[in-house]
Amino acid sequence: MSESRGSNPVLIEVTRGELVESRHRGSIAIADAEGELIVALGDVEGPIFPRSAVKAMQALPLVESGAADAFVLNDAELAVACGSHSGDTVHLDAVRSILSKAGLKETHLACGSHWPMSERASRELAGSGGQPGSIHNNCSGKHASMLATAVHLGLDTRGYEQPSHPVQRSIARAIAELCGVEIEHFDVGVDGCSVPTFAVPLAALATGFARLASGKKLPRSRASAAALLVKACFAEPAVVAGEGRFDTIVMRGLAPFVFVKGGAEGVHCAGLPRVGIGIAVKMDDGVKRGTEAVLAHLLASLVPQAQQVLSNHVSGDIRNWRGRKVGQIRAAPRLRAACAELAAPALAIGAPRR
Amino acid sequence: MSESRGSNPVLIEVTRGELVESRHRGSIAIADAEGELIVALGDVEGPIFPRSAVKAMQALPLVESGAADAFVLNDAELAVACGSHSGDTVHLDAVRSILSKAGLKETHLACGSHWPMSERASRELAGSGGQPGSIHNNCSGKHASMLATAVHLGLDTRGYEQPSHPVQRSIARAIAELCGVEIEHFDVGVDGCSVPTFAVPLAALATGFARLASGKKLPRSRASAAALLVKACFAEPAVVAGEGRFDTIVMRGLAPFVFVKGGAEGVHCAGLPRVGIGIAVKMDDGVKRGTEAVLAHLLASLVPQAQQVLSNHVSGDIRNWRGRKVGQIRAAPRLRAACAELAAPALAIGAPRR
Repeated sequence: MSESRGSNPVLIEVTRGELVESRHRGSIAIADAEGELIVALGDVEGPIFPRSAVKAMQALPLVESGAADAFVLNDAELAVACGSHSGDTVHLDAVRSILSKAGLKETHLACGSHWPMSERASRELAGSGGQPGSIHNNCSGKHASMLATAVHLGLDTRGYEQPSHPVQRSIARAIAELCGVEIEHFDVGVDGCSVPTFAVPLAALATGFARLASGKKLPRSRASAAALLVKACFAEPAVVAGEGRFDTIVMRGLAPFVFVKGGAEGVHCAGLPRVGIGIAVKMDDGVKRGTEAVLAHLLASLVPQAQQVLSNHVSGDIRNWRGRKVGQIRAAPRLRAACAELAAPALAIGAPRR
Repeated sequence: MSESRGSNPVLIEVTRGELVESRHRGSIAIADAEGELIVALGDVEGPIFPRSAVKAMQALPLVESGAADAFVLNDAELAVACGSHSGDTVHLDAVRSILSKAGLKETHLACGSHWPMSERASRELAGSGGQPGSIHNNCSGKHASMLATAVHLGLDTRGYEQPSHPVQRSIARAIAELCGVEIEHFDVGVDGCSVPTFAVPLAALATGFARLASGKKLPRSRASAAALLVKACFAEPAVVAGEGRFDTIVMRGLAPFVFVKGGAEGVHCAGLPRVGIGIAVKMDDGVKRGTEAVLAHLLASLVPQAQQVLSNHVSGDIRNWRGRKVGQIRAAPRLRAACAELAAPALAIGAPRR
């Protein structure tokens, strides 16, 4: 079913009145832990940067090195290490606690500053006369966990964000092994927060998420590290993202059936621990509107409870500033067909795999 | 050169490291006041909602009815009537002044409320303990001008935002005549601010902007109304949009050579008064990143000064939170080819038309 990147199908249509006003194209890979593809729509073989979608994979060395145990990190701290947080108090507290337990300061963070991702948190910060610092960067939990890993291993914390630093090299190995790709083949980009982002095919990313969520096909120690991180995100879904955001809504409503994490530029991944399958979506245009709609429709087809938990995303109503419905974000025919296939009984949660 | 909507070409590529990470597809129409197409890339015949790109056309009845004269509206007030403003003090003052001159209050505005489009203005409002009202809606200037038109004509102001209200019907006629389309063929949608948005083909929209900017092919009274509005936007470019925004940058740097106005969902139009051509762009995904990049490349090919005024948009550097260049927003081959054709001497500003 693979198609060239040049012709990825329209997956989401955005209507206004009687017209389709905008369209979002993209690719979808759904795979099991063996790497068998269940769905491949669009180009799933070309490399894409997974960006923040793989933060839980990037947190594996934190656990595998023994740092998480040594610093007695709790669920909220592990969740923020795996998260792209909104910059609310609960997030800042968790990041500061990691730094404090590892004997570090905010000035060690190399992620750069931006206003909190949450508009409300931004307005509150501005309202109190504050300015954003590195701690408010949505990636500060990941950076704190990379720093804590370096401290625990007795490594220099300077340059921890560089591809050549041992912490980044161990992250690259973890991603390569989970996704089943050769590390030498990585295209390496620089992420918004200055750490490397390693390009992998969408099909490999889906396989990686099947393994991350289920522990299948992983060495025992890695499976248990992955389970610890996934369990922490399930326990603290509001810490992984923030109130009102997609990943928090999904994991608050669908744990322990669905682990989910979005990244920049239209990447979004999910893993279904019970059935051992992974989902990876990349929208061509990099836009969250289409990305989250695709994932909502896929999850609603795969997980019975998702239809209710994601009802707003599935119905996709567009309302204007006075609350009147003026259009809809809806699945395009190609996505509808894929969802219909997924909803067949053989794939239902808890049923035996076909 | 027209192609089906299903296969609009990739116009903008977004790179990270060595990879193209995201892509934006869309259509471009460039036409003269006669309706002759100079460039037609992608689907330029299917109807699209022009959204806020046609605010200057929507303001024509304000001038043609005599309301602008009767209420002695100044350039800033006319510019905000044509604008999608950031919600800064200069914008709120201009809208309040229109309302006051017409004997109206903010409670008459039917646009609904949203936080100021400018993040800075939002934070300032929040910092002072304020909440957004209808006045902060980026369309409040357009709404004030529709209300002022109704008052001047002795019409009921209630329901001024409804398609059946005489003000909206006169706007529909003005758009139809400028674009050279039959009013009966309009698909009508409801815009974010509750007024109707009338769908027209991209080619017709380009023709409409050629006429709006140059006055060519228009009755004398309409040509003079259009000239008054365009001149006001050139005089007050910061009022049409806001500091740091594309339309303000373009008109501040390129008036009187380029009139420009963006709308929601990836629509952006421009008119070149001196050469009498209009540009209309619609990106499939509705995303401003691609839309503004396309227009920047087109303008840089058509107007010598634009290369410098829009240098940041043309170079398209993507920098991360620490200021390091990590990628680029660049013209894709199809757009580069169109730009090369436009840059040929025959179309240069001031040169005779081919």
